[in-house]
Amino acid sequence: MSVRSAESLPAEEVTAGSGTRRQVLIGPDEGPNFALRRFIMEPGGGMPLHTNQVEHEQYVLRGRATVVIGDETHAVKAGDVVFIPGGTPHSYAAEGEEPFEFLCVVPNQPDRIDLVGC
Amino acid sequence: MSVRSAESLPAEEVTAGSGTRRQVLIGPDEGPNFALRRFIMEPGGGMPLHTNQVEHEQYVLRGRATVVIGDETHAVKAGDVVFIPGGTPHSYAAEGEEPFEFLCVVPNQPDRIDLVGC
Repeated sequence: MSVRSAESLPAEEVTAGSGTRRQVLIGPDEGPNFALRRFIMEPGGGMPLHTNQVEHEQYVLRGRATVVIGDETHAVKAGDVVFIPGGTPHSYAAEGEEPFEFLCVVPNQPDRIDLVGC
Repeated sequence: MSVRSAESLPAEEVTAGSGTRRQVLIGPDEGPNFALRRFIMEPGGGMPLHTNQVEHEQYVLRGRATVVIGDETHAVKAGDVVFIPGGTPHSYAAEGEEPFEFLCVVPNQPDRIDLVGC
């Protein structure tokens, strides 16, 4: 199906995070090169410092968060664009009263998540 | 720079369309596999029926439009997800009173735009 509402798609808990759900909007079964996902982090939720093997290209849809990328800490808000190179440690902490929502595009390549310091 | 505001980035007119601008949010110089762009179509603007060689993975940020994909016509609105396979004819017509804005991800591969019927 070419067009669908993101709201209609299932969300799964991200076990490496807290208060964090992920929706696959366009998966590798459909898109030949990359997958489009939406993350929803409840206020106070987020993900601890970790690495992925693949890069992330992200767009913030709603809310705000503190995002660590490498040795930089960023205050991120709706309308911001975030690039996280493969292998770079990063973390998310949702701030404020509303959920922090963002799109995250990843290539259809093998990936492993490694928590930093664990 | 890992984080930037989309509003701070330049927008260029899309000559194949009308009332349509494009911003490159993360380009092929930065992302190794795919590019993240934002399109802004003013009310009444859009793009005529055309093909690209590459696929599009899209997320609608704002507004609404009539989008033709192959032989289907869709009423598309904010929060909708759109997949357009490579080589499939498609067109956009922004509807309503506010701009139609969407993200569009494409692979870093050669592409050519061909207008259909021209």
